[in-house]
Amino acid sequence: MVDISSLAGPLYGVDVVLTPTQGGITAPAGFRAGAVHCGIKAVSSALDLAVLAADTPASAAALFTTNLAQAAPVTISRQHIEKTRGVVRAVVVNSGCANACSGAQGLTHARRMAEETAAAVGCAPEEVLVASTGVIGVPLKIDRVVAGIRSATLTLARSQGSDAARAIMTTDLFPKEHAVTVRTPRGSFTVGGMAKGSGMIEPNMATMLGFLTSDAKVSPALLRQALQTSAHDTFNAITVDGECSTNDSLFALASGASGVAIDEASYPALLEGFMAVSHELALGIVRGGEGATKLIAVTVFDAPSVEAARQVARTIANSLLVKTAVHGADPNWGRIVAAAGRSGVTFDIDRATVHVGGTLLFEKGLPHDDAAPQAAEHLKGSTVTIDVSLGVRGGASATIWTCDLSAEYVRINGEYRT
Amino acid sequence: MVDISSLAGPLYGVDVVLTPTQGGITAPAGFRAGAVHCGIKAVSSALDLAVLAADTPASAAALFTTNLAQAAPVTISRQHIEKTRGVVRAVVVNSGCANACSGAQGLTHARRMAEETAAAVGCAPEEVLVASTGVIGVPLKIDRVVAGIRSATLTLARSQGSDAARAIMTTDLFPKEHAVTVRTPRGSFTVGGMAKGSGMIEPNMATMLGFLTSDAKVSPALLRQALQTSAHDTFNAITVDGECSTNDSLFALASGASGVAIDEASYPALLEGFMAVSHELALGIVRGGEGATKLIAVTVFDAPSVEAARQVARTIANSLLVKTAVHGADPNWGRIVAAAGRSGVTFDIDRATVHVGGTLLFEKGLPHDDAAPQAAEHLKGSTVTIDVSLGVRGGASATIWTCDLSAEYVRINGEYRT
Repeated sequence: MVDISSLAGPLYGVDVVLTPTQGGITAPAGFRAGAVHCGIKAVSSALDLAVLAADTPASAAALFTTNLAQAAPVTISRQHIEKTRGVVRAVVVNSGCANACSGAQGLTHARRMAEETAAAVGCAPEEVLVASTGVIGVPLKIDRVVAGIRSATLTLARSQGSDAARAIMTTDLFPKEHAVTVRTPRGSFTVGGMAKGSGMIEPNMATMLGFLTSDAKVSPALLRQALQTSAHDTFNAITVDGECSTNDSLFALASGASGVAIDEASYPALLEGFMAVSHELALGIVRGGEGATKLIAVTVFDAPSVEAARQVARTIANSLLVKTAVHGADPNWGRIVAAAGRSGVTFDIDRATVHVGGTLLFEKGLPHDDAAPQAAEHLKGSTVTIDVSLGVRGGASATIWTCDLSAEYVRINGEYRT
Repeated sequence: MVDISSLAGPLYGVDVVLTPTQGGITAPAGFRAGAVHCGIKAVSSALDLAVLAADTPASAAALFTTNLAQAAPVTISRQHIEKTRGVVRAVVVNSGCANACSGAQGLTHARRMAEETAAAVGCAPEEVLVASTGVIGVPLKIDRVVAGIRSATLTLARSQGSDAARAIMTTDLFPKEHAVTVRTPRGSFTVGGMAKGSGMIEPNMATMLGFLTSDAKVSPALLRQALQTSAHDTFNAITVDGECSTNDSLFALASGASGVAIDEASYPALLEGFMAVSHELALGIVRGGEGATKLIAVTVFDAPSVEAARQVARTIANSLLVKTAVHGADPNWGRIVAAAGRSGVTFDIDRATVHVGGTLLFEKGLPHDDAAPQAAEHLKGSTVTIDVSLGVRGGASATIWTCDLSAEYVRINGEYRT
């Protein structure tokens, strides 16, 4: 695991201390959650609907999938956050059905989810954001969803944050939540979050949903900046299988309940909190990737630019041959060199190096095969590092996180949809 | 399988008839081949070295990998074809060792292969092209290779074309060769060829090697044009796992022995012959892809441009979720729509359609789930068609061929290199 303490203070020149804390989206003050089983998922005990409510109007920011095929809740949430200019009261999420490729009826259903939640928490429908994940091309059982929203909003409590993290899961192996307390010279605030990853509910598209909360007092504009900046190096720096879903959504809400105001001077503290929580959640998504047995951190450094470094790292991280080699604990530097070589970024192979688990395997165009056993030992562990230098001294660097590719991935995604 | 007869005459307005014929690279007159086991491959009976010789100087053209990491034989062959301006006498190929990431010694070895072949057939070293495939980062056993070249060139014969096709295999499931006779108003000529595909010799990079021959009389410039044009829609329109190797090479040689001269007017006949042979070899590579059980033809039509159509088709063809769904005979239109949606090409989802095996599964933003069983039936076969319209009436189209992704692929590529 990458040491997230390295993100602290000195990076931004601000005196900030991060401390991991219990819980997730309700760890920050001013938020309550509710989670129920309303009957979208077949398993009777499985939570499948969650509501997150802010006690008072909260600043909000959102990022959505770049896929042209966007699910109804993405369309509606996008409209709502624009209409309210980033001030909302609640988020409603269901799992078990993505409400995607669902036509006009799908939009009606997504609006209805917002309306019911608004009625329950006492706000305008536009002040509610909506997310869905699960099987696509199937109509939402809206009556069950409505009953679920009414039930979930009756018992809203800070203690239900972890239940909410379970309610948004599809075939995720484990719930993903994290929170940190951020201590600054102006006082302390908390950042929390939950996410769901590349699970399928009956073989279908992987969807990434992420929710961040904070009790810092921050404008929608600064909140958006923190969300975008932190997502770039966390949620947008992971890949399980190179797919991008119709439903991917990332929301941030800030209640202001801590009384700690964020301005340009203290913004780095907010960003650090967002980075720490997003990093943990994003890596949780990769670790819980379908069939995954190893987390792989691919870092490309000495690159002509950050974008070039990301492009090479992403090509390596998405290479089936690299992912299967890691799965088999094969220190196959040749596949890494070949993936870098076809990435579209120009560099001098003779100046490039490849390290696996810190062991030098390739340098000056030639292998160091005597070091292979040491690298193979590293590859047997659950966290793998691949470091590639493109040979531009003092150049840029970037990390992309991925997981290995196993026969289990094929089994999960190749079984006939029933 | 796509009907290659559709490539005949009318397409170019030339009166041409193609007839499949026996053999491969030595089907055209003026070529002889030799193939031996020289000891690069461990298995004692496995052919691992082939020589193709033209009786007289032949026009030649070549295409090479776009990977920055280029193997020594690629570097040497590129130099030779430039020096001779496309007139060569022989090609030498070994399997079992890629001679890649092999430094200065690798270049010396590749040059030595050309020199030995030149000495045996009686030409200048520059008149010999070199190709290698197999494990990378391992030095070529040059003494064995030299002995192999001497032995292979002693018995050069037209009858050894099929042995050559076997000698270039690594873990290919079957040898790939094909030939057609092209009848034109000016006389008949033959186009033949052989290829090796995505085999690994000990888990390593897939390498595509292709060799085309013809007894048409054609200038190096027109030969290059035919090779480039036909490769674009055949060898460059297939993908097994999205990887591009350090050794990929495609050579064409024309002996002129048929006496049929190709000029601009008769060029379409040559192109048709090249298309037919390349199509067959390219599809053979996909069918023999690692772990492949099905050939998938992804055609995108009604696209804003050919390049856009190719980009969408390639994204679908490389989607792990689409490839695993096809493997499991799951008519999962959602994964196809999602892959198209993230391809980077802009189109209107509501005007797009998806057909699987000719069955309409998605239209106007909504699924046709009643048709799913029919599509599932089609997916159980060994050849699968996926047709996607982007809704631009009268727009461009393109086809990319790929194979399904099976647990066997992971097994082949995930086993520890021994």
